[in-house]
Amino acid sequence: MSENQRQILIVGGVAAGMKTASRLRRLDPEAKITVIERGHYLSYGACALPYVLAGEIGELDEVRRTTNGTLRDETFFARVKGVEVLTRCEALRIDRENRRLEVRFLDDDRRQTLSYDALVLATGSSPLIPPLPGTELDGVLALKKVEDAAAIAELVRPEARAVIVGGGLIGLEMAEALRARHMEVRLLEMQPQVLSGILDADLAEQVHRTLRQNGVELHLGEALKGIEEKDGRVGRVITTSGSYPADLVILALGVKPNVELAREAGLKIGVSGAIAVNERMQTSDPAIYAAGDCVESRHQLNGTPLYLPLGSTANKQGRVVADNLGGIDSAFSGVLGTLLVKVFGLNVGRTGLSKEAAEKAGFEPVSILAPSPDRVHSMPSARPILTRLTVDRKSRRLLGAQIVGPGETAKRIDVVATALSLDATLDQLAEFDLGYAPPYSAAMDPLHQAANALRNKLDGLADSLSPLQLKQRLDAGEKILLLDVRSPDEYAEVRIPGATLLPLGQLRSKIAELPKDRLIVPFCKISLRGYEATRILLAAGFDQVAYLEGGILGWPWELERGVVEVKAPTAA
Amino acid sequence: MSENQRQILIVGGVAAGMKTASRLRRLDPEAKITVIERGHYLSYGACALPYVLAGEIGELDEVRRTTNGTLRDETFFARVKGVEVLTRCEALRIDRENRRLEVRFLDDDRRQTLSYDALVLATGSSPLIPPLPGTELDGVLALKKVEDAAAIAELVRPEARAVIVGGGLIGLEMAEALRARHMEVRLLEMQPQVLSGILDADLAEQVHRTLRQNGVELHLGEALKGIEEKDGRVGRVITTSGSYPADLVILALGVKPNVELAREAGLKIGVSGAIAVNERMQTSDPAIYAAGDCVESRHQLNGTPLYLPLGSTANKQGRVVADNLGGIDSAFSGVLGTLLVKVFGLNVGRTGLSKEAAEKAGFEPVSILAPSPDRVHSMPSARPILTRLTVDRKSRRLLGAQIVGPGETAKRIDVVATALSLDATLDQLAEFDLGYAPPYSAAMDPLHQAANALRNKLDGLADSLSPLQLKQRLDAGEKILLLDVRSPDEYAEVRIPGATLLPLGQLRSKIAELPKDRLIVPFCKISLRGYEATRILLAAGFDQVAYLEGGILGWPWELERGVVEVKAPTAA
Repeated sequence: MSENQRQILIVGGVAAGMKTASRLRRLDPEAKITVIERGHYLSYGACALPYVLAGEIGELDEVRRTTNGTLRDETFFARVKGVEVLTRCEALRIDRENRRLEVRFLDDDRRQTLSYDALVLATGSSPLIPPLPGTELDGVLALKKVEDAAAIAELVRPEARAVIVGGGLIGLEMAEALRARHMEVRLLEMQPQVLSGILDADLAEQVHRTLRQNGVELHLGEALKGIEEKDGRVGRVITTSGSYPADLVILALGVKPNVELAREAGLKIGVSGAIAVNERMQTSDPAIYAAGDCVESRHQLNGTPLYLPLGSTANKQGRVVADNLGGIDSAFSGVLGTLLVKVFGLNVGRTGLSKEAAEKAGFEPVSILAPSPDRVHSMPSARPILTRLTVDRKSRRLLGAQIVGPGETAKRIDVVATALSLDATLDQLAEFDLGYAPPYSAAMDPLHQAANALRNKLDGLADSLSPLQLKQRLDAGEKILLLDVRSPDEYAEVRIPGATLLPLGQLRSKIAELPKDRLIVPFCKISLRGYEATRILLAAGFDQVAYLEGGILGWPWELERGVVEVKAPTAA
Repeated sequence: MSENQRQILIVGGVAAGMKTASRLRRLDPEAKITVIERGHYLSYGACALPYVLAGEIGELDEVRRTTNGTLRDETFFARVKGVEVLTRCEALRIDRENRRLEVRFLDDDRRQTLSYDALVLATGSSPLIPPLPGTELDGVLALKKVEDAAAIAELVRPEARAVIVGGGLIGLEMAEALRARHMEVRLLEMQPQVLSGILDADLAEQVHRTLRQNGVELHLGEALKGIEEKDGRVGRVITTSGSYPADLVILALGVKPNVELAREAGLKIGVSGAIAVNERMQTSDPAIYAAGDCVESRHQLNGTPLYLPLGSTANKQGRVVADNLGGIDSAFSGVLGTLLVKVFGLNVGRTGLSKEAAEKAGFEPVSILAPSPDRVHSMPSARPILTRLTVDRKSRRLLGAQIVGPGETAKRIDVVATALSLDATLDQLAEFDLGYAPPYSAAMDPLHQAANALRNKLDGLADSLSPLQLKQRLDAGEKILLLDVRSPDEYAEVRIPGATLLPLGQLRSKIAELPKDRLIVPFCKISLRGYEATRILLAAGFDQVAYLEGGILGWPWELERGVVEVKAPTAA
């Protein structure tokens, strides 16, 4: 080791750490780069673990391989990347004054002190384990590391009973994975909905329906109280409302950042509990950088700090750290909270702020929910998606999107995320020259349709109610005429309870029969005809009209099915 | 008809015309809106016709139905939309001074003169039919209208011989459709490549490979000279290089705008030959609007007029016309030339400018080609895509993308189109918070990988050559060391002719054996290791190094396959 050789120490060898190391080596062929990793495994794709357990990815090792099949182990990093990695090695203490890191090798308890010119903390996160009895029992597992997946795999067998605690991303992915392996699956969620904080209640209800249709027993508003032992391992799960037998319990309550090393070194911890960093990914000590699951991010739209650990963010941050250490001035501009999750046949995504979050951030948000086929509707591959867009009323700036459906949602989420990053307005979104060909999209992309519907709402052409808004007003006992403007055949097949049929083609001729003393809510299958009906009613002097956003497709609650006698609408 | 009722006449009832009519009716319940359509059919999805012929869409009528199955005919538009439509009615002459339109009913030759307050020309386009002998023969057809599809369908049968003239979007879609129906398919293209003006030559070569693999006999650089008759119908197709028997000839040479009505009325025709309009979609006569396939658009990036008729553009323009007629000030901001086309298992897209077009527009373009799996590579559903990004060197502004591959390309094209519309830079693209979950994308999205590779190139970290650039230099006889840095196993399986093997893991130890007197071009399967090798060589003092963009995956020309004896590299 030469006197002048720069020493870079990186604590953590999964996503952000190895990205930093690999990129920095390419920028700086001279520096000595050492990675300290507590576990056995390096640079693995933790997000793919549910798909290993589902049997979709054939072997656990696959998540540790490069695109061309090479195992990313110490030898690989040494020979190919020129990076030294110490595995089974724990970082114990940072001596900031002397720029030293004390480490311990787990296998032989050997201790060593390493010097650094720059230190990078990529310590990651750990599963949240609630302080409840029984969480330490055999058969109670979280899913975070390769070893966790291996332990869960041991317990996966047909007919075995799994209880998943937590209806977040991992909880839902694991529900699908274990159902794919023919297990009985119960999902507990303390909140009244899954994906709380990610999806609005009416869109979450679409996810609930899909989960139930796929045999997941959903327990909403029900919290874990403890786990009872039987024969030396997990026996029963005790909740606030009941108790259930279990052969396997997955704790999927989220993760917490690993900040002990940073905290003990006196580095600033952010309000979210994760390590605070500046745009260059420096901690409060400029010689110490941090990246990945252990750091706090900033939301691009409201500027507030948030903790949202993701592999995609970790990679971007790792590159920023390497650039700054390698002589390229680089900044990380924050996140939009973009998330995707597949739940059986449903593709779920969100980016940016919900209406509720936007209100809290001081915007005056207006939302719309619009359903559309994801491509030319006559294509047999076409599937519907529900798009909720939120914008600021005055500036018309885009604030966020939630998209759910069996159709292609990820593309539209990425378009909105791009638009959000660049401060686009709703009117710009409506004009984007998006790709159009029947196998991929429609002449009016679902985003264009949603944008135009929201423009109509903002411009005062038609008021509308979200499914949730209508449900709440109906549940409160408000007298509302639910006007189904579809055809008698469509009505006979499936309908919203209490709705009155008046096909759009007859609306102009029978308009005099409709009441003027209450809110009329026209709708159809997708509420395009519902919107047409609204315009016709407004033109005829009705002043209490708001169509149901999303129509039948967007209504997640119970529908009546089967043949009924079709009655003319009454003014009663 | 009341004295004060505003009269809106719309010529053309397919995409832009019916969009204008429907939207305007919703904005203005009072105006009299009349659509004049020469054909039988209204508001049909012409882009879906190849998929009807492929047998994918079950019935031809499907392209005329709404999402809920209603046929969009005159009755539908009258009853549901409140729009009068005159079918089989031809617009003959515009009397601009008196604001009158003379029309003729095709079935009974009746003539009528209609008054207008505003006139909308949505006259569409017609197939280009070359002035060559035999194009009028039975069995020689273009595909533009419902009737064309019906006529082609009559001639579709297994083993029948089709010649498709033109390797553009429709030509390629028809090649796939007819192969799906087990026909013999020859595709003639005058240019040396298909999708000329859309894809660069090396990416077009990927399409050629796919076409050939799917049994399409490709005749590039070969032009139609005429069609010979046999038994009163098409017999043989005569080209500049040969002659081929044919039972069906599809003329897919593009379309020309229908501008006769406008030209005879003295309206300004643009340089592209289509009707010139301003941002509000007004022609040179402010009382006459035009939209859809008959108008000229403006490219958002270089401001030049271009003719690129698309259903997506027609819909947007129709809305702008309706808004301006309905009292909402509205502008159409131009196009980016975004195109998508599915060619058998290959998803092909482009948006913005090619490097060549960007140079002509005065930019200093720099491009990269980067291959990536379209999602987490261990997922069995992962498929590769090749992404070419082009940016301006000084401003680092994005200029365009071409993306080709069996994986998901449409999403990435839409993200780039969005970014282009909002004047994003390459560095912003690299930071977009795109959605990440294993079924949809990788932690580093293909766009992020391509953006970072291009940042490395712009920042002087590594020079690179596109497949085409390398091919041209090799073909010119330049002495180049093609350095394959993959493993011996990979090399033994498939390799670029003339490449020398030196696995990346051995590069550092054998670096002294490499020559310094010529260009070294490292590459691997995807050129990530190729890039690593370039950095190592540069650090070791080699100054003529440029990796091969896209590696083996991006190399569309012949590869050697099968076991070879692996030799060490020589300095010779």
